[in-house]
This record gives sequence, structure tokens and C-alpha cells, in this order.
Amino acid sequence: MGPHPAVAAIRLAVRRVLHDILTDHSRNSEAVATAAARAATAAGDAAREARRHERPPSPLVLVACSGGADSMALASALAFEAPKLGIRAGGITVDHGLQPGSDLRAEEVVLRLRELGLGPAESIAVTVGRDGGPEAAARDARYAALDAAAERHGATAVLLGHTRDDQAETVLLGLARGSGIRSLSGMAAVSGAGGRYRRPFLHLDRQTARKACMVQSLPVWDDPHNADPAYTRSRLRHEGLPALEKALGKGVVEALARTAQLSRDDADALDTWASQAEVSVRDAAGLLECAKLYALPPAVRRRVLRRAAIEAGAPAGSLFARHIEEVDRLITGWRGQGAINLPGKVVAQRQGGRLVIRQG
Amino acid sequence: MGPHPAVAAIRLAVRRVLHDILTDHSRNSEAVATAAARAATAAGDAAREARRHERPPSPLVLVACSGGADSMALASALAFEAPKLGIRAGGITVDHGLQPGSDLRAEEVVLRLRELGLGPAESIAVTVGRDGGPEAAARDARYAALDAAAERHGATAVLLGHTRDDQAETVLLGLARGSGIRSLSGMAAVSGAGGRYRRPFLHLDRQTARKACMVQSLPVWDDPHNADPAYTRSRLRHEGLPALEKALGKGVVEALARTAQLSRDDADALDTWASQAEVSVRDAAGLLECAKLYALPPAVRRRVLRRAAIEAGAPAGSLFARHIEEVDRLITGWRGQGAINLPGKVVAQRQGGRLVIRQG
Repeated sequence: MGPHPAVAAIRLAVRRVLHDILTDHSRNSEAVATAAARAATAAGDAAREARRHERPPSPLVLVACSGGADSMALASALAFEAPKLGIRAGGITVDHGLQPGSDLRAEEVVLRLRELGLGPAESIAVTVGRDGGPEAAARDARYAALDAAAERHGATAVLLGHTRDDQAETVLLGLARGSGIRSLSGMAAVSGAGGRYRRPFLHLDRQTARKACMVQSLPVWDDPHNADPAYTRSRLRHEGLPALEKALGKGVVEALARTAQLSRDDADALDTWASQAEVSVRDAAGLLECAKLYALPPAVRRRVLRRAAIEAGAPAGSLFARHIEEVDRLITGWRGQGAINLPGKVVAQRQGGRLVIRQG
Repeated sequence: MGPHPAVAAIRLAVRRVLHDILTDHSRNSEAVATAAARAATAAGDAAREARRHERPPSPLVLVACSGGADSMALASALAFEAPKLGIRAGGITVDHGLQPGSDLRAEEVVLRLRELGLGPAESIAVTVGRDGGPEAAARDARYAALDAAAERHGATAVLLGHTRDDQAETVLLGLARGSGIRSLSGMAAVSGAGGRYRRPFLHLDRQTARKACMVQSLPVWDDPHNADPAYTRSRLRHEGLPALEKALGKGVVEALARTAQLSRDDADALDTWASQAEVSVRDAAGLLECAKLYALPPAVRRRVLRRAAIEAGAPAGSLFARHIEEVDRLITGWRGQGAINLPGKVVAQRQGGRLVIRQG
């Protein structure tokens, strides 16, 4: 008899990602080995040349684990699949220090990771700042800690337990910003420097992860923040999304996740177009030609203007759609407007058929 | 003392659209006159040449009015603004015949339109079919009737009372389909054959229209369908959107409307790219070259594949993202798959480096 369907599902999801990681890893190792061999040949260094024939060490994959159902399921599947592929598997839990006793809880999670056979298994305490609100600050601190842990242990990848439900919530949070399709594209299956972060459960629903923990008798910890109505994501999860499902039908979560993927591909394609267009609309002196900007499709023109504003020093996070629309009107609705002030003391103005965007 | 701010807002919105209509109208009239003059000169026909100097008749703009607050506000603003611009203004109400006494109600709406000074003002009875569900069937019947009325009266444009709230609902309905950014782009400000349909209130909220009716003492009729939980849109309006606003904040409706505009521009740009790409990936015999398709960004490639499937006879409405993804794997994940069946008896298969899509 095979494993429970939920356990089979989480293992399959992890196995696929581990295969991808191995493929990328061996490609990178080859590149490193080739470079080393070239260096060795150039230096005529026999020892180095010999080292070329050594097998690269087996790669290490870490799981980021809060102790909740999603990441505990992920840890269990990693512990099961990694050895079969010659991969070393470890786990990290981040202690955000936001609740009394969070350090003890983190130690408990480390114990559970060790019980699953993961090593290294460790807890990292972080200090959460205030930038961008409590959720963003916690996230920034968490990723900084995970990045540092991955570097320290020489990990090839870090697995994250985000599910399709998390993805749906992220799309709705992006929708609420109303800032275009990039913000609808949710979380990527592969992200971070060198594709370090991987999200094997992005197509799996939360219920499957929870079920997999239950049938494996894995104790899980429910973060009270997840049910705290002070948090936007929590309100969305417990009130917004259920109401939307009631109105639109059960397929909403899947539809949102699919929207994320399609929007991401669309946004990537348009970014590519804009980066090529930006070169073609500049004159010999590097200034933007208004007539050429005018001829671009609006979606591409606005992206070119956004890129130009950021290049001139406007901080991307403070540059909103309304700023770009105002600059766009210098092109599409020219009636002698004055200079337009953008964030980061950047100024956009039209001068003799050219659009000049620079820090003032 | 000027009018109430709500009344000022609806009038401004209508005035702007009437200006656009006049601009388009005079451009078209000029084109027609120029063509007539050319024909006259070619034929040496003096009478026709003389007619070139006649003033075109003043344009007629119709409002589609259900008797509800949005379209009654629209009718009142049209009645106020049109004469000042030398535009004739009329109104049409469609009797869907879905409730007992709907014919009498329609006659009442006609009376109100006449009281506002609109003429022609008439009611058109339609028969609602069943295709695509009750809401889609009613919509199809309504637009067919409005198209016919516009033709019969020689109307230049038909104004529709959709508000920003309707737009937000439409975006969420599109989101629930999960079929990409085109379905997120909501309703266009200008649509239909020759840009016949105009939506002056697309940036105005429903509350403003309702307020404008109230302060002008215009009686409005609340369609019971709008509150009937059997209708998806009604559930969305009364439960889904309010819950989303509670979770995400009051700006959700505006964010959704902005998403519609941005998504529309993005989808247009990508369609343009795909139509150009489709030409460039065909060989001399007109077949799609797999290697060239592979080199396209995924978002563009999938659009090219969709276009090719539709050209081959697949009905656009039955062609889903999953169909296109399967065809796409013939390009990106080729491992000798067999032919793929698409709706409309269209078959896609890979043959010697070419992708052949044809009706089988």
C-alpha cells in the first residue's frame, strides 16, 4: 500500500523541485569545474588539475520551517525525498521574537526538524524593525536570516512552504494596490539570488499540507498571527477570500493562482519590450525623443518612462501609477505643462521635443 | 450658486464624452465629405459637388436607460449637456420581459425620458434566450436591441451608465475565470462597432449617480435582479466586494478599476506583439516554425498559438488556457507527444520542426 494521497502529493511536489535543483546544480558545478580547469591549465597547476576530477560535494537543501502545517509538511517531504537523490537536507526556523516564549517554540521546531532526520537544524533569532509595516518588516528580517544561513552552510537552495492559498492571497493583496499586472503576479516558484528560494507547494492547497501532517502524526503549530484580524492577510484569509468564494464559486483560489502565473509571464514580456524600446527612443545624446515615445503602445511607453525615472534616481517603491501618468501626459497631452516633480527629487520636463528626466 | 457637486460631476463626465463624440463625428463627416467630393469630381456630378458644402445634420446621441439610478442620472446629464453642444439627445429602454409588468415599467421609463426632454424616447421589447446563462443572455438581447435602435435612428453614439463599481465587479468576475489579463480589463470606455458605445461614468462611483438623482428629485427604480442572490454579480456586489473592502480597505473599488485600465493597455500591447510575431514565425509555406516559436517570450508564444488555433477554426469562447498550455508543451517540452485535440475539431501536432494546427 502506498502513502496517503496527501503525503504522496507533497512528496511528488518536493521531488520535482529537487530534480530541478540537481539539474541546475550540476550545470553550475560543470561551469565551475570548466572554469577551474581553464585556470589550472593556464597556471599549469597539477594539483588544481587533479581537483577537477573530484566529485562535487553532495548539495545541501534547507527548508524554512515555522512549525506550521505547510512548512512542517514540506520538511517531512524533504526529509523523505532528499536522501534518495543524494541530497543533504537541513532546516532553519526563524525566531521573530514577537511573542513571549517564541525562543522556546523555535527550539521545539528545531527538535522536530532533527526528529525528521534533518541536519543542520537550527533556530535563528532576528530583530524585526518597523519599515513598511509589521508584515513587511517581519518578512525582510526573515529573508535576511535565511540568506545568511544559506551562505553560511553553503546551501544550494532554500525551500519555502507557500501554498496555492498563500498565492491567491498575495494576488488579492496586489490587486488592492491597483498598480498593474506585476503586482498581480504573486510569488515566483523560483526567486532570490541565483534562484535560491524554491516554492514546491505553490500549486498545492493548504488543506493537502494540513492533511499530510495529520496522517503522518506531525504536531503543527498554528501561529496566532495567522488568525489575528489586525493583519491584512489574516482578514483576507478568514473573511475576504471565503466571501469571494461564496460569491464566485469554489474555483476562485485556483483562478487567482493561474492569474498570478499568466500575469508574471505577461509582465516579463512587457518588461523585455520596454527595455528594448528604451534604447530605440533615445537620441544620440541619450535623451528621450517625444515623437518616438508617442509612437509606442501606451503599456510600453509607461514602462519606458518608469524605467527612465528609476534610472534618474526615483525610488521604485515610491513611484506610483499616477506619477507615470502625469509624465505620460507630457507626451500624449502636451499643452505646455511645467516640470513634474517625482519622488527622490527627480524632475521630468519636456524640452524641444525631448523628455528630460533628471535629479534636480 | 452652482449645481450640487454630484450633479456637477455627472454633467462633467457626460460633457467630456460628448466632446469626444463631436470630435470623432466631425472627423468622420470630413472623411465622408472628402470621399463624396472625390466621387463627385470623378463623376463630374455638379449636384453631388454642391452637397459637399451642406452642413452635416446635428448628431444624435442616445442613452440606454433601465430606469435605475445610474442610467437615470446619465439621462438627466445628457438632457442638460447635449443642447448646449448642438447635439440631439434621445433615450432607449429595453424591456427584457423577465418579470410580470415589465412592459408597463418600460413605458414609465419612456415617460420619464420624455419629461427630461429626450426624443426619440422609446421602449423596445426583446426575447431573452438561454445561451451562456441568464445574465449573458439578457445582455446579448439588450445590445442587439440597442444596436438596431442606433441604426434605425442613425445615432452617432449610445451612452451606457456603467459606473466604477460595475467596473470593479466586472474585474472580479474576470479574475474568477483565471484566464489572464484580457479578462481583467473590464469594460472599455469606448466599444462596439465604430466606437458606438460610450461609458461616461466609468470613473464615477455609484453613490454619486444615486445622489445626483436624489438632489434632482428623479424617481429611480431598483431592479430586483440587482439584489437577487441567484445572480453572481449581485452576490459579488452585496457580499463579495464589501467583504473584500473590509479586509483590504476602502480603496479596493478604485484599485480594481485602475487594474482594468492597466490590464487593457497591457493586453492590447501584447496582442500587437503577437500579431507581428505570428507573421515572423511562419515559414514560406505558412507553417509555424517550432524553433522560432521557442525563441519567443512565453506570453507572446501562447498568444500566437491561440491566434493560430482560432484561425484554424477553434471557437474563441471554448479555447481555454489549459488547451493552449498543452499545445505550448509541443514547443517547450517536446518528447514525441501525439496530436492534441482542440475545440472545434481542430488538431495541433508537431511535424518535422513545424507546428501544424488545422481542422481535422
